[in-house]
Amino acid sequence: MNKAEPTIAQAPRLGEMGLENFAPYLMNRIIGRYNAALSSEMAEMGLTTPQMRSLAVLSVMDGLLIRELAVYAVVQQSTLSRALETLDQNGMIRRAPDEQDSRATRVFITDAGREAYIRLWPQMSDASEAMFKGISEEQRRAFVGTLQTMLRNIRKHDF
Amino acid sequence: MNKAEPTIAQAPRLGEMGLENFAPYLMNRIIGRYNAALSSEMAEMGLTTPQMRSLAVLSVMDGLLIRELAVYAVVQQSTLSRALETLDQNGMIRRAPDEQDSRATRVFITDAGREAYIRLWPQMSDASEAMFKGISEEQRRAFVGTLQTMLRNIRKHDF
Repeated sequence: MNKAEPTIAQAPRLGEMGLENFAPYLMNRIIGRYNAALSSEMAEMGLTTPQMRSLAVLSVMDGLLIRELAVYAVVQQSTLSRALETLDQNGMIRRAPDEQDSRATRVFITDAGREAYIRLWPQMSDASEAMFKGISEEQRRAFVGTLQTMLRNIRKHDF
Repeated sequence: MNKAEPTIAQAPRLGEMGLENFAPYLMNRIIGRYNAALSSEMAEMGLTTPQMRSLAVLSVMDGLLIRELAVYAVVQQSTLSRALETLDQNGMIRRAPDEQDSRATRVFITDAGREAYIRLWPQMSDASEAMFKGISEEQRRAFVGTLQTMLRNIRKHDF
């Protein structure tokens, strides 16, 4: 039998567990560095993190509602609105009212937006590969599988 | 033989790979939600994310230099300085010049700071357990092991 999940009362304190065994701490450290690595590349291209994330998400799922894009791009709606304003002015996206609900806005990536994202992708890919150095293909697949389960968990449980 | 790591030229584009197979994207989504879940708890206690992270790190490694604390707490130094100012005013930390280098400042957690962190820990632990629901102890250990390798990678390579 697997060791049962510790209940709250039994949960070890962070001091006993050690910071480096607490998954959210490790994830914050790693992803903080990944984002920082990309932010200097983005700054050179005149893009902010919310703008870059919007382009990356729209390159895969075009025509999202703003509230959907906020979730996928992990950006607060107020921050996202400002980011989209600038991307629109720079011709990288265009916004259009939803056909069903004219109060809702859908966001579409333009060719210029796609080109900007394509220029950035090698850096995203490099930064990701650097993180996975020395990790086997099998470990990596297991790791991504666990992340996918975690994402389903937070979607369901919404903490 | 394991499949070789793709070189940059061979690296699949995000569109081919799918957002949900790109580890940094999944990590950003998950950790964004974890941080958001804690931020409402913290707000009730009158703490900001950089303040909470500082207390969590200092509860394990007390007396760090400010530049060390910035790395461990994943907070920019300018943001951290403001956070420490408030924590000092609220009696949760105290700052003292380093014995070797009087221009450098070390940060120490107080009993009040420790109590605030102890009140927050159940929420941190809960949010982490919710993420790991349905993931076996063995998968979880492998996941944390991979995160630890990734952290060593980003420390060494500094992207």
